[in-house]
Amino acid sequence: MATQPKSAITPTRTEDYSEWYQQVVKASDMADRSPVRGCMVIKPWGYALWENIVRELDDLFKATGVKNAYFPLFIPLSFLEKEAEHVEGFAKECAVVTHHRLEKNAAGGLTPAGELAEPLVVRPTSETIIGDSFAKWVSSYRDLPLLINQWVNVVRWEMRTRIFLRTSEFLWQEGHTVHATAEDALERTRLMLDVYTRFVQDYLGMPVIKGRKTASERFPGAVDTLCIEAMMQDRKALQAGTSHFLGQNFAKASGIKFQTAEEKEEFAWTTSWGTSTRMIGGVIMTHGDDDGVIMPPRVSPAHLVLLPIFRNDDERTKVMEYTASLAAELKEIYYHHARVRVEIDERSIGGARGWEWIKKGIPLRVEIGPRDISENAVFVARRDMDHRQKKSFQREVFTGGLCDLLDEIQGNLFQRARAFTDDHTRTIDTPEDFYGFFTPDNLDRPEIHGGFAMSHWCGDASCEAKIKEDLTVTIRSIPLDNAPEKGRCICCGKPSGERVVFAKAY
Amino acid sequence: MATQPKSAITPTRTEDYSEWYQQVVKASDMADRSPVRGCMVIKPWGYALWENIVRELDDLFKATGVKNAYFPLFIPLSFLEKEAEHVEGFAKECAVVTHHRLEKNAAGGLTPAGELAEPLVVRPTSETIIGDSFAKWVSSYRDLPLLINQWVNVVRWEMRTRIFLRTSEFLWQEGHTVHATAEDALERTRLMLDVYTRFVQDYLGMPVIKGRKTASERFPGAVDTLCIEAMMQDRKALQAGTSHFLGQNFAKASGIKFQTAEEKEEFAWTTSWGTSTRMIGGVIMTHGDDDGVIMPPRVSPAHLVLLPIFRNDDERTKVMEYTASLAAELKEIYYHHARVRVEIDERSIGGARGWEWIKKGIPLRVEIGPRDISENAVFVARRDMDHRQKKSFQREVFTGGLCDLLDEIQGNLFQRARAFTDDHTRTIDTPEDFYGFFTPDNLDRPEIHGGFAMSHWCGDASCEAKIKEDLTVTIRSIPLDNAPEKGRCICCGKPSGERVVFAKAY
Repeated sequence: MATQPKSAITPTRTEDYSEWYQQVVKASDMADRSPVRGCMVIKPWGYALWENIVRELDDLFKATGVKNAYFPLFIPLSFLEKEAEHVEGFAKECAVVTHHRLEKNAAGGLTPAGELAEPLVVRPTSETIIGDSFAKWVSSYRDLPLLINQWVNVVRWEMRTRIFLRTSEFLWQEGHTVHATAEDALERTRLMLDVYTRFVQDYLGMPVIKGRKTASERFPGAVDTLCIEAMMQDRKALQAGTSHFLGQNFAKASGIKFQTAEEKEEFAWTTSWGTSTRMIGGVIMTHGDDDGVIMPPRVSPAHLVLLPIFRNDDERTKVMEYTASLAAELKEIYYHHARVRVEIDERSIGGARGWEWIKKGIPLRVEIGPRDISENAVFVARRDMDHRQKKSFQREVFTGGLCDLLDEIQGNLFQRARAFTDDHTRTIDTPEDFYGFFTPDNLDRPEIHGGFAMSHWCGDASCEAKIKEDLTVTIRSIPLDNAPEKGRCICCGKPSGERVVFAKAY
Repeated sequence: MATQPKSAITPTRTEDYSEWYQQVVKASDMADRSPVRGCMVIKPWGYALWENIVRELDDLFKATGVKNAYFPLFIPLSFLEKEAEHVEGFAKECAVVTHHRLEKNAAGGLTPAGELAEPLVVRPTSETIIGDSFAKWVSSYRDLPLLINQWVNVVRWEMRTRIFLRTSEFLWQEGHTVHATAEDALERTRLMLDVYTRFVQDYLGMPVIKGRKTASERFPGAVDTLCIEAMMQDRKALQAGTSHFLGQNFAKASGIKFQTAEEKEEFAWTTSWGTSTRMIGGVIMTHGDDDGVIMPPRVSPAHLVLLPIFRNDDERTKVMEYTASLAAELKEIYYHHARVRVEIDERSIGGARGWEWIKKGIPLRVEIGPRDISENAVFVARRDMDHRQKKSFQREVFTGGLCDLLDEIQGNLFQRARAFTDDHTRTIDTPEDFYGFFTPDNLDRPEIHGGFAMSHWCGDASCEAKIKEDLTVTIRSIPLDNAPEKGRCICCGKPSGERVVFAKAY
């Protein structure tokens, strides 16, 4: 007799978190590795999540006055070189186009031919190529602020890749804005961090800490990098979005100048900000359990699946008719501003059918059998609860309460993640506790092992480097809502005025 | 005294159509050339049109069961080589990535380094890389049909580029499907051509001829290529979408096999189909006039612009309040399934303001002045009519009739283009008339000069080649709705069973 394994995913999270993640991606049918080194294939279930993320986040951007545009995939090498720190930061991971055709070689195969006079870099980010356009678009203070975003693919040749989290090619949005004053640019930098925070918390259900990066973790060429950091279930941090104040660095590199109201010519102030398909990895690692993905309803590819149950053709006709009418009714309901997304799965493959949807993380599974129909009821299982707990609802009660139910699930996921993050965030003041917190074999004190350590730091890069060297722990950010507090650096003991977030990170 | 030029765009269409097109793209602020050879920068007004095209077309795809996914930007050279005709067709225009980082050279500059073992081609189209995934995804007839689409950028290194129409990088969608039988694949090939036809005619307002390409114009590797062709105002043809029946060519190249219901292993049958940012060029060239772009309402970046008029702060307060309330009311109206898109332009720049919106092609310009407000009226100009003809509407009449008005404009544009296409489509039966029709200096018979010639063709590639050589005229397609008709080849005089569409083309 086949017994149901204790979990749908092998190994479980506690057995091997990293392997659990790979297996969840596979079992949920969200993405595949590709034959191209470090690149991924995003399958329909994963891509539908991305489409929902794009739609919702794009609306939030547009509500702040941002407009979308599209800039070239290729960046001339000379453009990248315009900002010294910038090119230094990306030179080691650039895909470089050097030829523009293929030619038959002696062996009968094809060889690159038509060498380019200047190599082209496949964009790792677009500050320099967009800056070239902005220099043409901006001439007067009346043209400012200029608020532009693009949804595109970018390439960074990563040596160690992990699907969704770190891939050579990924999908993202990059916002680029130009302002007349440093204050305006700083305000936009913070505003977009707020938009990210709202989106990641309210839509993806991931609680985050808003903070500022240290100099060593800044975007190459930025004056200041703000970020949001979320805790995954292995207690590591995931950077879920960054917003950069670029000062006048890129304006000077690209020649973005404007005439002020007083008719003086000045360099403009710019920002850039981005989020990527990495967020999908964050969703999986924040909410997933040993049975697979758990999708937050507001961005889930589908909100519910209808699972008709029948034993013969006669029952099938009746059940499918009822299912179709229920589906039609459900699709007319608006959950927030989008229609309810319904899947119907009538395959006769036994228990495997329900398990597939559990692994995919669909918020609700709705069984419809002849008995339910006779009672005008549906049998509902929630993905955020034990999958054996199913509940019968009268049809009108279910359809009428659907949006509240989805909101409840959305809220549950956030609260659960919030509690987890809080549980594993510790105020730590002694080096012993700090090293113990981050040392895997610290088995005598498992209750304080791993997570976010809120500790004092003197501001010295060498202390930051020592901790990274000793523990592979980095300063994730200096929280924006920090209250000043006197203390001593967790590394060197020198005076410090505030705590920072230390953690291992993706 | 400054006089209004007779048209906003110089030169006019009749003076120099090609230059008129470049100037319209510039004047409408839709796109820019970029510093990267042959690549374009799509500006917000042009990109918003593309976003609307994507949203509407994507809905039409999904209604036929298609799901979106994402495949790698890079194609290993060995993949491209799997289908001989295919690689032959694209080898001459491939951007090739050969290195994965940049290194300081002796001169202090940067040089490509880290040579790849196998060069990667930036996708010109994705049959071979998607085929690799499909081979893994398909194993049984139960997995079929597989209906996938992706919205991505592609690169074809074009030597002679023209913005939107032929650029080295462009945005497109490429659909790829897998079927158990040739019949199913052919049906899908035709279905997607029908979807394109519906979209291009009903949304973009461009009348098209549905047809089949001759062997010489087929997609490299396809068994059959269906296409839609539209006539631009210079009477040249623009291919606005193609749908390919790939037979088992790519299934064999990529190893896409499945087990039939009878448990036999067979190669599958595939299709692919695409449309691109080239459609934007088609919209401009189909509807534009000597004052600029004319946007079809269903895809226009905005449906109307509110133009407040005031002479002092007091008037400004009143007018802006009224404008804001009208805008809010308009945004609640649904035009088809999308909300009405409203722009407000309160700049005090005189007549230049209205002209900017004329050049951008917004369907309706709505002036709101103190007098209009006192009468609770608005003053409306339609872009599809003479711009001096403005009409006053009571507010409720305008808001209540807005959708009908937009539909009327949409219909007008299509009818006008339909009439133009019909006017310049001729049934031609003698070589003299045929050569005269396509010869620019045929000034004694201007009434029959240029357009679509519906003429007989024997089916011989050498006749097709001779006409191309003599006149740069090609067979655009063999119309799908052709009635059999006996005649003689326009080139060699041999018997022919049907007419084909000859034209000069983009």
